[in-house]
Order: sequence, then structure tokens, then C-alpha cells
Amino acid sequence: MAAVGIVATLTIQSGKEAEFEEVFKGLREQVLANEPGCEMYDVYKSKADASKYVIMERYKDDAALKAHGESDHFKAAGPKLGAVLGGAPVLDYLDQVA
Amino acid sequence: MAAVGIVATLTIQSGKEAEFEEVFKGLREQVLANEPGCEMYDVYKSKADASKYVIMERYKDDAALKAHGESDHFKAAGPKLGAVLGGAPVLDYLDQVA
Repeated sequence: MAAVGIVATLTIQSGKEAEFEEVFKGLREQVLANEPGCEMYDVYKSKADASKYVIMERYKDDAALKAHGESDHFKAAGPKLGAVLGGAPVLDYLDQVA
Repeated sequence: MAAVGIVATLTIQSGKEAEFEEVFKGLREQVLANEPGCEMYDVYKSKADASKYVIMERYKDDAALKAHGESDHFKAAGPKLGAVLGGAPVLDYLDQVA
């Protein structure tokens, strides 16, 4: 199975959660509409920590993951996300086993 | 959206990776066959750390997550996983936002 995944853990500034969710929902729509190699781009909020969000991502292969990072919509979201992030995102790059 | 997620991060003892993958693939098959409320139970291996695995899980609601933890197949996998784990699993409990 050549699919790859990312778990991205994001910390958001207090009071900026709604703004973050709005930006990321828009990004998700663009990713799913424009990246045929992206099979999942789901946004979750921690039950334990209101400032913590987790993005579960799956791509059909490494090339699709690379295309995601180079896409115009992803690059355009960078400044909007930077304005609400409370720290550097933590990214786990993964190969799907099953 | 009432769906809930878990990101489970597992550290496996060196040399036990194949045994872990076999046990977890079997558990995944039982989960997907017997838990209608489990919508994803996917197994990933870290690209950066050969001892690290990440399970991405999604359930239709909290009741389905509870049913997972109480299932016979999940309980039966416990001792087999305990034999290959290198430390306590780290679990992030999540609510899906998008």
C-alpha cells in the first residue's frame, strides 16, 4: 500500500479558534476539490485542550503529498494560518500499513 | 458533525515491528467487520522513526467509541499488543470539526 499520511498537530492562540476553523474549512474545501491525490483532509479539535487541533491527512502516494505542499491554495493559506497559530505546527509523516 | 476521532501513537520494541503489524492488521479486520460505528481504523508507520506507529481512528459518535473499547476483540488484543509495545500508548481524543 503506497498511501501516505500526515498527522498535523496545531496549537491556536486563545480566542482565535473560530477564525482558525473558518480558514481551515475553506482550505479543506479547496484541497478536496483540486487535489485528486488527496483522499482525506479532516479537521479535529482536541477534547482535552481547547487550543489544540489535529488534521488527519491521507494521500495516494508521495507525489500527491508533494503536490499538496506546492499548491497555490495551500501556499495562500499560510499567512492566514500564521496569524492564528500559537506555535510551530508538529507534523508526523507516515506510510500507511493497513 | 458528531463524529469523533482518535490519534493513537504507539512505540514498538525493536525487532517486534512485524509481530505488531500482524496483530494490528488482524484487530483492524475485526473492528471493521464487527463495529458499524467505526468508520476508520487505519495503521501507519512513521517515516522518521521505525519504532513509531500511528493509528488514525474515526467513529460516528461517542457511543461507537465506547463500544470499541468494550468490544471482545479489542480486549483480546490487549495482551498481544502489550508484548510488543515499548511504552505506554499516547491517545488524543478528538471531535471532528470538518
